[in-house]
Amino acid sequence: MTTVTDLIDRLESEADQHRDPETTPDVGIIMGSDSDLDAMSGAHEALDELGFAEQTDFEDPPEERFTYETYVVSAHRTPDLMYAYAETAADRGLDVLVAGAGGKSADLPNMTASLAYPLPVIGVPVQEKSVDSVIGMPTGAPIVAVDAGKSFNAALSAVQVLAREHDVLRERLVASHDDLRGDVAEVSAALHDRGVEGFRADRE
Amino acid sequence: MTTVTDLIDRLESEADQHRDPETTPDVGIIMGSDSDLDAMSGAHEALDELGFAEQTDFEDPPEERFTYETYVVSAHRTPDLMYAYAETAADRGLDVLVAGAGGKSADLPNMTASLAYPLPVIGVPVQEKSVDSVIGMPTGAPIVAVDAGKSFNAALSAVQVLAREHDVLRERLVASHDDLRGDVAEVSAALHDRGVEGFRADRE
Amino acid sequence: MTTVTDLIDRLESEADQHRDPETTPDVGIIMGSDSDLDAMSGAHEALDELGFAEQTDFEDPPEERFTYETYVVSAHRTPDLMYAYAETAADRGLDVLVAGAGGKSADLPNMTASLAYPLPVIGVPVQEKSVDSVIGMPTGAPIVAVDAGKSFNAALSAVQVLAREHDVLRERLVASHDDLRGDVAEVSAALHDRGVEGFRADRE
Amino acid sequence: MTTVTDLIDRLESEADQHRDPETTPDVGIIMGSDSDLDAMSGAHEALDELGFAEQTDFEDPPEERFTYETYVVSAHRTPDLMYAYAETAADRGLDVLVAGAGGKSADLPNMTASLAYPLPVIGVPVQEKSVDSVIGMPTGAPIVAVDAGKSFNAALSAVQVLAREHDVLRERLVASHDDLRGDVAEVSAALHDRGVEGFRADRE
Amino acid sequence: MTTVTDLIDRLESEADQHRDPETTPDVGIIMGSDSDLDAMSGAHEALDELGFAEQTDFEDPPEERFTYETYVVSAHRTPDLMYAYAETAADRGLDVLVAGAGGKSADLPNMTASLAYPLPVIGVPVQEKSVDSVIGMPTGAPIVAVDAGKSFNAALSAVQVLAREHDVLRERLVASHDDLRGDVAEVSAALHDRGVEGFRADRE
Amino acid sequence: MTTVTDLIDRLESEADQHRDPETTPDVGIIMGSDSDLDAMSGAHEALDELGFAEQTDFEDPPEERFTYETYVVSAHRTPDLMYAYAETAADRGLDVLVAGAGGKSADLPNMTASLAYPLPVIGVPVQEKSVDSVIGMPTGAPIVAVDAGKSFNAALSAVQVLAREHDVLRERLVASHDDLRGDVAEVSAALHDRGVEGFRADRE
Amino acid sequence: MTTVTDLIDRLESEADQHRDPETTPDVGIIMGSDSDLDAMSGAHEALDELGFAEQTDFEDPPEERFTYETYVVSAHRTPDLMYAYAETAADRGLDVLVAGAGGKSADLPNMTASLAYPLPVIGVPVQEKSVDSVIGMPTGAPIVAVDAGKSFNAALSAVQVLAREHDVLRERLVASHDDLRGDVAEVSAALHDRGVEGFRADRE
Amino acid sequence: MTTVTDLIDRLESEADQHRDPETTPDVGIIMGSDSDLDAMSGAHEALDELGFAEQTDFEDPPEERFTYETYVVSAHRTPDLMYAYAETAADRGLDVLVAGAGGKSADLPNMTASLAYPLPVIGVPVQEKSVDSVIGMPTGAPIVAVDAGKSFNAALSAVQVLAREHDVLRERLVASHDDLRGDVAEVSAALHDRGVEGFRADRE
Repeated sequence: MTTVTDLIDRLESEADQHRDPETTPDVGIIMGSDSDLDAMSGAHEALDELGFAEQTDFEDPPEERFTYETYVVSAHRTPDLMYAYAETAADRGLDVLVAGAGGKSADLPNMTASLAYPLPVIGVPVQEKSVDSVIGMPTGAPIVAVDAGKSFNAALSAVQVLAREHDVLRERLVASHDDLRGDVAEVSAALHDRGVEGFRADRE
Repeated sequence: MTTVTDLIDRLESEADQHRDPETTPDVGIIMGSDSDLDAMSGAHEALDELGFAEQTDFEDPPEERFTYETYVVSAHRTPDLMYAYAETAADRGLDVLVAGAGGKSADLPNMTASLAYPLPVIGVPVQEKSVDSVIGMPTGAPIVAVDAGKSFNAALSAVQVLAREHDVLRERLVASHDDLRGDVAEVSAALHDRGVEGFRADRE
Repeated sequence: MTTVTDLIDRLESEADQHRDPETTPDVGIIMGSDSDLDAMSGAHEALDELGFAEQTDFEDPPEERFTYETYVVSAHRTPDLMYAYAETAADRGLDVLVAGAGGKSADLPNMTASLAYPLPVIGVPVQEKSVDSVIGMPTGAPIVAVDAGKSFNAALSAVQVLAREHDVLRERLVASHDDLRGDVAEVSAALHDRGVEGFRADRE
Repeated sequence: MTTVTDLIDRLESEADQHRDPETTPDVGIIMGSDSDLDAMSGAHEALDELGFAEQTDFEDPPEERFTYETYVVSAHRTPDLMYAYAETAADRGLDVLVAGAGGKSADLPNMTASLAYPLPVIGVPVQEKSVDSVIGMPTGAPIVAVDAGKSFNAALSAVQVLAREHDVLRERLVASHDDLRGDVAEVSAALHDRGVEGFRADRE
Repeated sequence: MTTVTDLIDRLESEADQHRDPETTPDVGIIMGSDSDLDAMSGAHEALDELGFAEQTDFEDPPEERFTYETYVVSAHRTPDLMYAYAETAADRGLDVLVAGAGGKSADLPNMTASLAYPLPVIGVPVQEKSVDSVIGMPTGAPIVAVDAGKSFNAALSAVQVLAREHDVLRERLVASHDDLRGDVAEVSAALHDRGVEGFRADRE
Repeated sequence: MTTVTDLIDRLESEADQHRDPETTPDVGIIMGSDSDLDAMSGAHEALDELGFAEQTDFEDPPEERFTYETYVVSAHRTPDLMYAYAETAADRGLDVLVAGAGGKSADLPNMTASLAYPLPVIGVPVQEKSVDSVIGMPTGAPIVAVDAGKSFNAALSAVQVLAREHDVLRERLVASHDDLRGDVAEVSAALHDRGVEGFRADRE
Repeated sequence: MTTVTDLIDRLESEADQHRDPETTPDVGIIMGSDSDLDAMSGAHEALDELGFAEQTDFEDPPEERFTYETYVVSAHRTPDLMYAYAETAADRGLDVLVAGAGGKSADLPNMTASLAYPLPVIGVPVQEKSVDSVIGMPTGAPIVAVDAGKSFNAALSAVQVLAREHDVLRERLVASHDDLRGDVAEVSAALHDRGVEGFRADRE
Repeated sequence: MTTVTDLIDRLESEADQHRDPETTPDVGIIMGSDSDLDAMSGAHEALDELGFAEQTDFEDPPEERFTYETYVVSAHRTPDLMYAYAETAADRGLDVLVAGAGGKSADLPNMTASLAYPLPVIGVPVQEKSVDSVIGMPTGAPIVAVDAGKSFNAALSAVQVLAREHDVLRERLVASHDDLRGDVAEVSAALHDRGVEGFRADRE
């Protein structure tokens, strides 16, 4: 059984190892509860599409160059764990964080952005009613946010940050985007050329 | 397989043909995604009721005098296609556009209105949350909008514009409206004369 | 002193004259109260810019080819006048109506659109809180609307409708738009080339 | 088949009969569409509970002293029918109107209040989004409204107005209210004395 | 100095006198705080216009047949006074109450409607944010409400109720309404016939 | 059959007994309707977890030191019962009240806070739309509130108040909180160490 | 010059002193910025009215038995200071906290409630837009809140908690409330007996 | 006089020069209108504080290593300029864009993010009502946004991105943040130690 104290100890111990950044997770995905997992799974999906691997053991990285990790961190139930995660993030070799939370007091992304500063944090409001709480930071305490539930886009934005240093990621972003554009063109031509009825019929 | 570039080339080539306006589509219906098709189908329904035909091949118009065409155009995924559609619209012989988009950043109707100006564009917010984004244009950049999901009314409004020049369309609008009014009178008399219980019983 | 009955009689009498459409107002601007006049004055401004003249006497038109007229019509205090205005509009030679109203029950644009149908009516919510009431028409009863207070754009849209038949109006719309674009370019270059401080200094 | 014109003629003809008010409907219930019938059925239910009968033939009243009638009247599709209903209401012997409408432009209650003035009209917003439009009347044009969907309460309020003149109705209102209060006391004692679990068990 | 107990005693004593209803106030105006007086003064204004007098001494009525009285009653600070006022209202000869309150918990109109039932109560939300709280009553507990700040209309509605019994009030309502309609016609003709510029010039 | 009068008599009689506070309910849970029971059951659940027993007979307390009771009290249908409950609460030995109500006029928590003052009352808005009405009290009339539906938290807050005097309750609050924190740590470690796919697989 | 580290050291050192609770502040008032001071000054005002003194030196308490202290603590700029304040609060002898914050991400009250648990924390949303963020805590992490800007009521509620143990505070709460009630009675009698015009005249 | 065409030509010509990235602007600040300049000036202020210089001539860079430039670009009035700016941004050597726009259709940030992809774009809603439109992008089309008017934070976030590659920027971010934290500590100690009254007195 793992306790909050165990996790805090683990994070601090990992931070003290000063591992080679190429072997540590590049993107850290955290969420306030495992009930947010479905809403946050867009982030995993986007990173998987861009060739990232999930790193489930800090001391045993996967072979892929780019990786991510995932933790549940509750701002209101485990504020000490949130502090520990955010304060060790840079030393644990993370480059950008994606933090999602639901409810009207979605404090996790904001508090993490404050504590991990100046590491970039991208906030994901898990519900529509979480948007205000995630985005509303005071002057001097920056966070950037995506729209409610747009964890896929949050991961793309995280990779846009990493792509400043890694041209290969820039290329993967463009390639993936070209696929998306191709899909629009396909469906647009199909709808126009087949007509509304024909298009519907084809879809069924 | 059709690419975005193919579609842009097609639209530009059609614009260069300077076809007889009587043979080109009168109403262009565009939407941000094929997932908007159900919400936009009211436009097709209204135009069908008013005797319009769907033109699925620009170079091979249907026999009916009044026609419409449909394309998927994504403002955020294919901004170049949006540009091309709006800029060629007048030269392709379109008289009025009906543009629908969903989400909170429903930019397609507005950007199309800006790019196709002074061709009239009627914006359809596909969702309630799209209304603000569609309607909120700055002074000097006009769009007119209908309520969320009211693509049927958007098509009626498009025909109201065309009816300035075509008396036959004015007559069709009036005839169709008279049918609608007759339906109200029917149900009103039935409800009153049968009483609430009788009316309900008849309906079952 | 003019009574509601006087005005109704006047409108009906004018409708009976079947005047040459070239001598009647092209655009009818109505508003729920004279307290809406400031919010609606953008419509007058836009039409003036596009060379329209105000017609203050139905039987004595100005020399300009394109004209507009203005009336106060209260949906809730003078519903009979609203009825008379809308029902005589087509016979009085009007081509398109711009109707503005404030408050949360901004019924004037909608009721006018219903009564004057199929004449196109462009609704102007005079206040932010009027938007819902103006835009929310049921299927089969079309209105198109602009954003709160955007009477300038409503007039542009009205002229976009008229421009279907009158190329000279299309040209005026484009020329006016080009001026607007020039203004943006001017200020953009000034801000960039002078820098923020220099730009501010020049403005003072 | 009944047309809008037929209904208008019927209403006007009934108004001309100047029937004994004791034989005419006391409460007129109108709604914008038969799709509003479920939301409005609370009004029928409340009136039935208070001993009112439905009058389905103006010229053949039921035996009960107090009666109501129901019509569908669409503000936007049959504005002429709305005018006729409101303007003939007093002459047709109605004492108070209950008018319900849905959508964001729920004009029927307001326009009816304006046209039937000074007959009291109680507006029922059929949907939550109809509240603003129903309640937002300008100074000098009164309507009173109940909350969204509260047609039952609208009917009680209508009877509160009638009870100013008819003590028997006042007594029925009090008796019905006492039943309601008794229900609360019953359930309160049951919940307390049985405890939460016992209460739930009893309910199953 | 008057205490809450003094006021409660006074109201109960007045109720016990069973005065001739013709000599008691017809309309009772109550508000949650004297800071609401400006928002509620429309009610006084409307009643004054319709020939009502203010009755400031229950035992010494003015000569006018129709009268009103005014009290401050705070639901949250003096709930016992609210109970006493509502429960004695019918016995003190009041026929209809107009109750205004501000804030988001505008409980005075609702609680008064519940306590004074079946006496009709017209709720006035003193602020926009009070509307929901005033209007949102559960089934079986009726209140009718006007829009935020529309105390003028609330008083008109109160008189519409009284007019069921008093033809003279009905006549006064119509006469006052005719004046209002005349004002609209005046300004409408002035705006149209003088033109926008002339109209503005005349106004200055 | 129990009437409202029976319940009021019961409450007043219990208040007159001046029982030993150790034998009376510590927490009183009231709600506007038994339809609120599901939303309020979080309060029962939290108190049960913290070792409270339900007291269903005022004169026959359970053996547990800490207890609660539950009543249905409708502000709008039984205002007299609400009055009696709040005014006898302190004399009946209650230490803190948890009051829940739904709808837009959720007056029960507020009125109870006003009437039971200075006994602490924790308001529970049963629906999202009840929040404003519950929280919006004027200066000088305090209530504290939890978020919509958070009756579990309301009970915790009630126990936080009681814990000022009872160290054993403080200890129970901490122990229960530690369990909750342990749950977060468990799931966090599982998600991270198993990876997203492994975690999902384990859950199925 | 005081640094964040100085303050954290100070708080921890004070906590280690284990002072007699009678000499430590009873109520701790914290706010996110000194720009919140005006909005929070109601708390100081209420406590001053109830005989509390401000303790500005932890080691040199004022003579009064009941005291409060005030700190600025920014959740987003000084999260470590927030952590230290909340975690030392119980050891520093505080009994209840009043925490105010503005903006849409008003995290201070919530995070403080989570960190200081089970010490009671009363949240004050400094602006209307802060309400959601303050109130929206997840199940198991309680906070109680007052309405936007109602710091006066927050302090009353804090004293209601303290009054569970201190009868003298209960008496002061009642006495202060009686004054408030007297004010309502005074103004109610004045408004009624002088009439609206007389009352206004007296006020000028 | 500069035209839109001139600006487009300029941007394209600069893109063709393939300048050394160390001499081109690092941050591009664009806004929809010069009326947004005050709301966007926080971005300039933040960058100035962090040692950035404004580059007003693309071909004549300032001596400072880090620079920014500013343009007015209207999505609705100059969509072609927006296209040109976004499409040339990467080639002109920009690393991150900050784009601000007001109104309800704040399309500039979104469209720029779509067109400049995968260059990171940070959106600034200039008004509260612009937030939805800026943030609401569909899956696959990422933007990150700050809260309404928080251009200062947008610039900090832009530098957080650049700091991935430039340690000196990371150091400047930390140093600037430490100053901010020192300010909070100063004011917190002053408020506490001087007391509320003393603090206020010192401030005057």
